Amino acid sequence: MGIPRDGSGGPGQGTSFLTGLQDFGFPGHIYPINPNATEILGLKAYPNLKSVPEHLDLVIVSIPAKHVPGLLRECGEVGARNVHIFTAGFDETGDQQRKQLGEEVKKAAKENGLLLMGPYYMGIGYVPRARMSCWRGVSPISGRVGFISQSGGHAGEMSAFAPSSGVYISKVVSIGNSYGLKATDFLEYFTSDPETDVITMYLEGAADGPKLFRMVRDLNGRKPVIVWKGGLSEFGSRAAASHTGSLAGSKEVWNAFFQQTNAVRAGSVEELVDAASAFTYLTPPKGNRLAVIGIGGGSSVAIADACAREGLRMPHFNPETYSALAKVINPAGTILSNPLDVGGAVFRQVDSLAQVVKAVVPDPNIDMILVAMNFGFLPVSTDEQEQVLDYLCTYAKSNPYGKPLVVALTRGVPSLKIEQTIDRVKIKAIQAGLPFYTNTVRACRALSRFAEYHRVLKETRP
Amino acid sequence: MGIPRDGSGGPGQGTSFLTGLQDFGFPGHIYPINPNATEILGLKAYPNLKSVPEHLDLVIVSIPAKHVPGLLRECGEVGARNVHIFTAGFDETGDQQRKQLGEEVKKAAKENGLLLMGPYYMGIGYVPRARMSCWRGVSPISGRVGFISQSGGHAGEMSAFAPSSGVYISKVVSIGNSYGLKATDFLEYFTSDPETDVITMYLEGAADGPKLFRMVRDLNGRKPVIVWKGGLSEFGSRAAASHTGSLAGSKEVWNAFFQQTNAVRAGSVEELVDAASAFTYLTPPKGNRLAVIGIGGGSSVAIADACAREGLRMPHFNPETYSALAKVINPAGTILSNPLDVGGAVFRQVDSLAQVVKAVVPDPNIDMILVAMNFGFLPVSTDEQEQVLDYLCTYAKSNPYGKPLVVALTRGVPSLKIEQTIDRVKIKAIQAGLPFYTNTVRACRALSRFAEYHRVLKETRP
Repeated sequence: MGIPRDGSGGPGQGTSFLTGLQDFGFPGHIYPINPNATEILGLKAYPNLKSVPEHLDLVIVSIPAKHVPGLLRECGEVGARNVHIFTAGFDETGDQQRKQLGEEVKKAAKENGLLLMGPYYMGIGYVPRARMSCWRGVSPISGRVGFISQSGGHAGEMSAFAPSSGVYISKVVSIGNSYGLKATDFLEYFTSDPETDVITMYLEGAADGPKLFRMVRDLNGRKPVIVWKGGLSEFGSRAAASHTGSLAGSKEVWNAFFQQTNAVRAGSVEELVDAASAFTYLTPPKGNRLAVIGIGGGSSVAIADACAREGLRMPHFNPETYSALAKVINPAGTILSNPLDVGGAVFRQVDSLAQVVKAVVPDPNIDMILVAMNFGFLPVSTDEQEQVLDYLCTYAKSNPYGKPLVVALTRGVPSLKIEQTIDRVKIKAIQAGLPFYTNTVRACRALSRFAEYHRVLKETRP
Repeated sequence: MGIPRDGSGGPGQGTSFLTGLQDFGFPGHIYPINPNATEILGLKAYPNLKSVPEHLDLVIVSIPAKHVPGLLRECGEVGARNVHIFTAGFDETGDQQRKQLGEEVKKAAKENGLLLMGPYYMGIGYVPRARMSCWRGVSPISGRVGFISQSGGHAGEMSAFAPSSGVYISKVVSIGNSYGLKATDFLEYFTSDPETDVITMYLEGAADGPKLFRMVRDLNGRKPVIVWKGGLSEFGSRAAASHTGSLAGSKEVWNAFFQQTNAVRAGSVEELVDAASAFTYLTPPKGNRLAVIGIGGGSSVAIADACAREGLRMPHFNPETYSALAKVINPAGTILSNPLDVGGAVFRQVDSLAQVVKAVVPDPNIDMILVAMNFGFLPVSTDEQEQVLDYLCTYAKSNPYGKPLVVALTRGVPSLKIEQTIDRVKIKAIQAGLPFYTNTVRACRALSRFAEYHRVLKETRP
């Protein structure tokens, strides 16, 4: 791998590609290219590509824009076919001269048969199995969720945030302005990638709309595709044009895209990860009827409102379920309805909570179950909450009725100490196959999208 | 203050009222009442109210529901007029016998001339000046935001979350089922309370709708009233009926309420606090035209979309502003538009950022300014971000153009270490009068509601 380096696109950014790889323990050979240095960060530096002693699998370009066409010709000469241009400052600036330079880059790439990633982004951002990363401090754990991003920042956030939420990544690729390889090229790759089960995307425009449409539609039922489409508003589309030179497209076109392909909608990295968490860990539900087991009347109202707003249903339980619940739940200070406010006593006694779970889960009116917990708020101690969570982990592992079960927090976290506890228990829960959402709105949204995907899937592929 | 105690409404809850007061250093006299104890938590216990040697200002009731009417008659006998019933298990259960018991409670209160808070909630939840709190570990800092809550859980969350977000509280009151004192009674109190400038409310129903309407409308322009109305959805209104026995009312009625009173809408404790932060720390804007100074193309698109969705406008800058910006901002890898992606270099050099701020703030097309930062993401170090924040604090203090300036985070936080940094810098920023929102959607929503309040105010009270 060769990294021509200097202070382009962002000073020190060439170095940061290098430190990202070194920090992650990349096992391949790295050749820093710089005519003015003999050594960079402990590695022998080379004056140019030709002087590198072996074939280069990938060249990362981080030099001033005006030198890029020349470098691409050099890539052609040494037979380095895969080139990632980090350098920015081409047509996205709106400047005529820089647009012309962009055309030269495209021409040089074509004439030399190069596969181009970028310009203006992070390329192959994060591949834990290959120990490749543009960012330091990322998780070494490999997973089955892929991400194609037209934003380098969102790619970085996904690489950090997803693993911290228990959603592990196969590959993150940041495609930028797409002079060469486009979103659809990477989507084609992920379609047949045996390491990727769930595909997430951040798109500002779609250079090849009809192809994207066909590919996502054909993936329906094989690999879920979760898409955050940025720039759908007036101001957002203007920003997208300045950012990646993309035509953001109209709301109507994209609504049709989502409707006809069964792609899952998201509106942030957080929502991409939340939905991916559901698709990774849960079995498909039969419908969108949610049961909520929680504490607190105000919380129950808030969850019920969120549920309704996100398009989930919250039916009454069967009479037998109420009879079973009435044996465990004290009628004072509780709500024997759906959402259930079981009261503090039940969350303080894991056996009581187990009885509640066993009463609710089999109810034929219910397709999915959300347990709403809070840490650091009265009247249940953190230890007691952890015991409850341990029980839910065990239950989720056996999952006797095959119904999706998730945990969500109902209250803003009051302290860093509690935050630390949550960080710990969250990972434990997720590893048991129990998605853990840090607020109930996020949980309802993810479950609703998950259920809706499977509803449409059943209709289109009965 | 007398606290009749036993294992009602929630076991140990009587004790938790006591520990809350003790923990906060309540300076008044506390008399635990319990016929079966001589000492509770280091305090001498009394068998009944009559045996207490002085007049009682407040009685907190946490005994089984069936004993409550008798206790209220005892309150009357000893001349204890202010009574807070924590005990639950009356008409909210839907049970006929318990409804009857609720009627007895109302009758006993009336016959004995009592001012009743509750039943089924926390009463005077948190008053930092008086060192009263139902919850342990609350902030001792007194502020100017009051909260009236029909949910004890939301009252507890507000008491913990608001101060941790730099929004300090005058009084939190949790009103529950309102057999006696109602939301409007407390609103009347806050209206003339010299310690309260901003009033926040969580309501499920309104027992006295027309009075609430008149009071909030009359407060318009004097004290902003921020209202989270719970139970507006089908499932939410059912939960509200089970929770506080409230009739939640129709969406249309509440839409009219908000429109005609200029009450500010919120949808969670977080949104109540976010709006209160704007009303506490910012000067009224002339309009809703926002400038954004940030890093990253993807972030810019996301902020612009959020801005549009929340009803803010994002105009182009004046030509003079662009000329001034072009002197500081490198054209490659940046976006010279609104939202501004100034690039990493500018955030790395506080002098450059100062030039950007000084170019943008005076622009006549701009009413409010949001600086979008990220901590823990490349390419700017946390130290560099802190220097930028220090500069913004200084600028916010002088605020030469009187335009609201806020900070918001653009990226999910990747680690607890970064979270700790954010917790520290957040409080520093807010103390300088610079509201700090932990995501851009929250910032846009709060600013939009703040601007809208002042727009309507100008129209109605020119």
